[in-house]
Amino acid sequence: MKIAILGTGRIGGALARLWQGHGHEIALVARNEERAQSLRNDFPRCRVIRASACAKAEVVALCMPWNAAESALQSVSGLDGKVLIDCTNPLNADASGLILDGTASAAEQIQEWAPKAKVVKAFNSLGAALLGNADFAGVPADGFYCGDDAEAKRLVAVLVQDAGLHPVDVGPLKNARCLEPLAMLWIDLALHQKRGGNFAFKLISRERG
Amino acid sequence: MKIAILGTGRIGGALARLWQGHGHEIALVARNEERAQSLRNDFPRCRVIRASACAKAEVVALCMPWNAAESALQSVSGLDGKVLIDCTNPLNADASGLILDGTASAAEQIQEWAPKAKVVKAFNSLGAALLGNADFAGVPADGFYCGDDAEAKRLVAVLVQDAGLHPVDVGPLKNARCLEPLAMLWIDLALHQKRGGNFAFKLISRERG
Repeated sequence: MKIAILGTGRIGGALARLWQGHGHEIALVARNEERAQSLRNDFPRCRVIRASACAKAEVVALCMPWNAAESALQSVSGLDGKVLIDCTNPLNADASGLILDGTASAAEQIQEWAPKAKVVKAFNSLGAALLGNADFAGVPADGFYCGDDAEAKRLVAVLVQDAGLHPVDVGPLKNARCLEPLAMLWIDLALHQKRGGNFAFKLISRERG
Repeated sequence: MKIAILGTGRIGGALARLWQGHGHEIALVARNEERAQSLRNDFPRCRVIRASACAKAEVVALCMPWNAAESALQSVSGLDGKVLIDCTNPLNADASGLILDGTASAAEQIQEWAPKAKVVKAFNSLGAALLGNADFAGVPADGFYCGDDAEAKRLVAVLVQDAGLHPVDVGPLKNARCLEPLAMLWIDLALHQKRGGNFAFKLISRERG
């Protein structure tokens, strides 16, 4: 797939390397030439583009901090019809809570900002260090995702797998209202409860009880 | 432990039987004599009491639907200093969403209603049919709980174990803001995504990545 990545912090950077390693064509979006040069140094196998060139991608992954998401999306042209993966979490300043209430989600807000994109929430509910490194005694951590477009979700499931996670479809986009608090719980346990980052939530199931 | 249970629906009824089987003294709260007689028939090994008699219990488990929780608590005397287990979820009428926003939780509201009780959120994030029946190929489902009183949480961890679940402490009471959406996700997957009830979320961890 041709994938443009907005935001090359811990999550975006990890996804770029993993997806590139699985043969996807990765383009990293830089807002200016200084940043572009830095990205070329850090990601020599990826293309570096301006936001206006996202139109050529099939998939756009939004890996910015939440407070930068709206302006990043505004700078991108041609999102209509594309798969837009939302990796954000609407955290407050000290990452102690979410700034959206339980009748809203970052993913649904992003869908409003890009109404014709096929938004899929993914990669938000575990630490970046687990991407590509998610083996728990032979059991892969789960990559939960949700969205309203079935075909977009099939593409994202492949990308979740290519990031080393077991893809788990958790329903429509509004279930981001649950995945974002799940991320908040992961963050709180990791940072504030001092559990570190070597854990994940997994959906376990069986045929019958 | 001496435990009074408010609400003997699916969750409260299952906990009554399981805890009684582990040697705890269970008292079921009935709001009138008709209900009391029905409970005596259904739970012959448990005592049936009026709310005013909860003062003798060490632990009170609130297993009512959310919209009945406030009046149930008002009818109970002597909650000060007791462990109060909140098993509720603040669901809307058709169980399609939560009615509290992400900066609040049922558990914190209950703590306001019973300010001197030691509130612990537990037993809210999986289906009642999994209580006492939570073996997934040799792996027990997790019973997540959170609260602000360490001693109260130690007691609740024992009761989680006695309900057949692996106890997992997920931090302070405010993390109910995450456990309640996790319950919403469980309910949505079970009911609306037709996954049935034979699944649970588990926290998996490892020493190092």
